[in-house]
Amino acid sequence: MRTVKVGLIGLGTVGSGVVEIFQRHGEDFRRRAGVEVALTRFVDRDPECARRLGLSEASFTEDATELIENPDIDIVIELIGGTGAARELVLAALSAGKSVVTANKALMATHGQEVMEAAASSGVDIAFEASVGGGIPIISPLKHCLVSNEITSVMGIVNGTTNYMLTRMAEDGLDYHSALAEAQNKGFAEADPTADVDGHDAAAKISILASIAFNSRVVMSDVPAEGIRSLTPGDISYAAEMGYAVKLLAIASRTDSGIDIRVHPTMIPMSHPLASVNGVYNAIYVVGDAVGETMFFGEGAGSLPAASAVVGDVIEVARHIRSGCLGLVGCTCNEELPVRDIGDLETAYYLRMLVLDRPGVLASVAKVFGDHGVSLASVIQKTDDAPTAEIVYVTHRATEHAVLAALSEIEVLDVVESIGTMLRVEEF
Amino acid sequence: MRTVKVGLIGLGTVGSGVVEIFQRHGEDFRRRAGVEVALTRFVDRDPECARRLGLSEASFTEDATELIENPDIDIVIELIGGTGAARELVLAALSAGKSVVTANKALMATHGQEVMEAAASSGVDIAFEASVGGGIPIISPLKHCLVSNEITSVMGIVNGTTNYMLTRMAEDGLDYHSALAEAQNKGFAEADPTADVDGHDAAAKISILASIAFNSRVVMSDVPAEGIRSLTPGDISYAAEMGYAVKLLAIASRTDSGIDIRVHPTMIPMSHPLASVNGVYNAIYVVGDAVGETMFFGEGAGSLPAASAVVGDVIEVARHIRSGCLGLVGCTCNEELPVRDIGDLETAYYLRMLVLDRPGVLASVAKVFGDHGVSLASVIQKTDDAPTAEIVYVTHRATEHAVLAALSEIEVLDVVESIGTMLRVEEF
Repeated sequence: MRTVKVGLIGLGTVGSGVVEIFQRHGEDFRRRAGVEVALTRFVDRDPECARRLGLSEASFTEDATELIENPDIDIVIELIGGTGAARELVLAALSAGKSVVTANKALMATHGQEVMEAAASSGVDIAFEASVGGGIPIISPLKHCLVSNEITSVMGIVNGTTNYMLTRMAEDGLDYHSALAEAQNKGFAEADPTADVDGHDAAAKISILASIAFNSRVVMSDVPAEGIRSLTPGDISYAAEMGYAVKLLAIASRTDSGIDIRVHPTMIPMSHPLASVNGVYNAIYVVGDAVGETMFFGEGAGSLPAASAVVGDVIEVARHIRSGCLGLVGCTCNEELPVRDIGDLETAYYLRMLVLDRPGVLASVAKVFGDHGVSLASVIQKTDDAPTAEIVYVTHRATEHAVLAALSEIEVLDVVESIGTMLRVEEF
Repeated sequence: MRTVKVGLIGLGTVGSGVVEIFQRHGEDFRRRAGVEVALTRFVDRDPECARRLGLSEASFTEDATELIENPDIDIVIELIGGTGAARELVLAALSAGKSVVTANKALMATHGQEVMEAAASSGVDIAFEASVGGGIPIISPLKHCLVSNEITSVMGIVNGTTNYMLTRMAEDGLDYHSALAEAQNKGFAEADPTADVDGHDAAAKISILASIAFNSRVVMSDVPAEGIRSLTPGDISYAAEMGYAVKLLAIASRTDSGIDIRVHPTMIPMSHPLASVNGVYNAIYVVGDAVGETMFFGEGAGSLPAASAVVGDVIEVARHIRSGCLGLVGCTCNEELPVRDIGDLETAYYLRMLVLDRPGVLASVAKVFGDHGVSLASVIQKTDDAPTAEIVYVTHRATEHAVLAALSEIEVLDVVESIGTMLRVEEF
C-alpha cells in the first residue's frame, strides 16, 4: 500500500492539533481506515512553532511554495486562514495537482466557487469539514447522508464565543462587557472580538452550509449579520419570562421567493433543541422533507475538535487517492436561487424601549405600530421611581420593512427616550 | 451519464417511503448529487402494496430471485428485515455482483461479518445507515468524519417506542401499561412490543455502532439487554427528585479490559444532552479523544426518515459505481477486543424495595450491603399507613457482582416484602 504524504501549512491552534492527532494515531489509520497516511512536511512563518511541536528541522520550511511544488506531497492542509495568502496557496496547490484540506471558512464563504472549480479542473479533492462547527460532522452529512432530502432549513449556533457569552449573561446576569472579558480571559474570545460578536464568523459559516443545503452558491457578503453588542441581561431575562432563550442564530431557509439567510440574536422557545445548547458548544439544526428534524451537536472550536475534522478529511481524501476516485463529490451548486432581502422577512419581533412615564405614551407608540400594520401580541411595562419607564413589546408576525419603518417614527416621538434592543422571535 | 438501476425488495413502511422519495426527487439527484439513479424494479409478497403505491405491473414481481438475477439491476435495497430470507437474499445479491443497501439491524448485528465479507469478495458496496437511528446520520459520520478519533464511548437513545413511553411516564405519570397502550394506539409500538420494550432492538443497534466505533466486531448476542417493563412512574419521579432523567440507554465504552456494552434503563443527570431527548426522537452521543463530546439527534423511525437514510446510501453507492470505486470503505473490524462481563461493571445503583415498617429493618438491610462492600450514598423512605414502607437506596460506585450478591441476600430477609426496580446511575 502506497503511503499518502501530507504537508501542513500553519502550525497555530488547529495545526498543532493536527500534529498531535498524527503523533497519537498516525499508525492506527491503516487499521482503522485502510490507508497509510503520513504527515511529512510543515510550513509556518515562525520556526519556533515547529520546534515546540518536536518536528524535525528537515521536515520544516518557512516557504509554503516549496511544499506546494514538492512532488512527494499528495495532500496540502491549509490552516493559515483569511482570504489573502491562503487563497493563493490553495489555488496554487490545486493547480499543482494536490488535493487540499482546509478549515478556512472565510475563503470558502468568499471564494468557494473559484476554489471548487480549480479542484474540479485539476481532478483533485477540496475538503473543508472543519470550516463549520469545529469537529461536528455537518458538511459531509449534508453532502452524503441527507442528499436525498430537499433541505428546507439549516440553522445553528455556530459561534462558540458568543454562545459562551450569552450563556453567562443568561445564567449569571453578566452584562455584555463582563461576559466578553471573561470569554477573553478563558481564551474563548480574541483580543479583537469583532468577527465573533458582530456575527461575521457566523455569517461565513451559514453561507457555506446554505450553499450545500440548497445547491445554490451563497457568499458571505449576501448574509445580513447582526451581533450581540446591544444585548442586555435584561433582554435575556424578559425573554426567559416569556419562555424563550436568546441565541445568536445563523439561519438559512428555502422559501418560494429565494433563500432567506441571516445572522442575529434570536428568541427561540425554551423547548427547541437549540435552546439548551450552552457554553462553547455549537449545534446545527437541519430540517429536510424526508428526514424531518435533525441536529448535530458538539464542540465548535478548539485545537483538537477542529483537528479531528481536518484529519477526518485527510483520511477521506487518502481513501480517494488509494481508490483512484478523486473528485468523487465536487461542487453541487447547480441552481441559482435568489437571496431574499431581509426587509421581506416576516416574523415576530421583540422591541425594548425607554419612554417617559406619562399618560398617553403607550397610546401614541401603539398608534405608530398600527399605522404601519404592525399588531402587538404583548406589552410589558416596568416603571421604577425614575421619570422613565422601560417597555417591551412583542409583535405578531410582521415584515421587517414595516417594523423598521414604525421604529424610525417611534424613535423621534417626544415621549421616547431611546430604542433599546430589537430581537426576531422565531417559533420554527 | 449511465443511469444506475435500483431494485427494491419490501414495500412496507420504509419501502413506501423510498418509493415516495424517488417519486418526489428522482429527477433532482443528477443536479444535487451528480448521478442518475432510477428505481426500476419492485418485489413484495403482496401485489396490492405495489398497486397502492402506483407502481406499474411490469415493474413488479413477487419473486425476489428474479430481481437479484436481473442483469440490469446495479443496487438491491433489502427492506424485508429479519435474519432468515433477508440474509439469503442479501448474500445472493452480493454474490451476483450487486451492491446492497439495507435497513436491517438484526441482519447486520448478527451476520454483519458474513455480509461484509461477501461484499468485499464481490468488490461491491454494502450500506446500512438506516439500520441505526432512522434518518439520523451516524454510521457514515463514524466511518468518515470521526475516523481520526479513538472513540471512547458511543451511547444513545436508539429506540423511539420506549423513549416515547418513558417520556409519557415522566411527564404525565402514566404507568407502563397505559404508556404502552398509548404508544400502540399512535402506531409507535407493535402489537407484540417485545423487541422494543425488552431492549432487543436497542441491543442490535448498539452492537452495530460499537463494531464501527471500536473497530472490533460485536454481535447482538454479546449485549446484555434489560428493558423497561419493571419501571414505575414512581421510579421516574424518585429519579427526578434526585436530578436525574430515566432513559433506556444503549451504552458501549472502550475500557482497558475490553468493550463494556449493555442496554438498560439508566439514570442520567438532567443536564446531560441525552436527558432532554424526548418522545419518539433518538439521539446518539459519541465521545472521541480529539472531537470531545458530539451528539446526533433526529427521528429514529418512521417511513420517510428511515427512507431518507436508505436513499442517501443508494445515491452514495451510485456515486461509487459512477466513479469506479465500489468497496471504498469496507469492513474496519480489524481488532478483536474482548466484551466485558456485565458483572464487572462498576457504577452507582438505584434500588427500590418494599420492606416491613418496623424498627431495625434499615439496619439489617444496610448490614447486607456492607457485608458485600457496597456503600450507600442516600436512602429515601416513604411510609404510608400501610404496614410496609418503600425504600429507595442509591449506592456509591460498586460492581454489579457485589450489588447482585447483596440483593439476593436482601431478597430473602424476613423483613423484605419485595425488590422493585434496579437502575444503573451513570454520571458520564
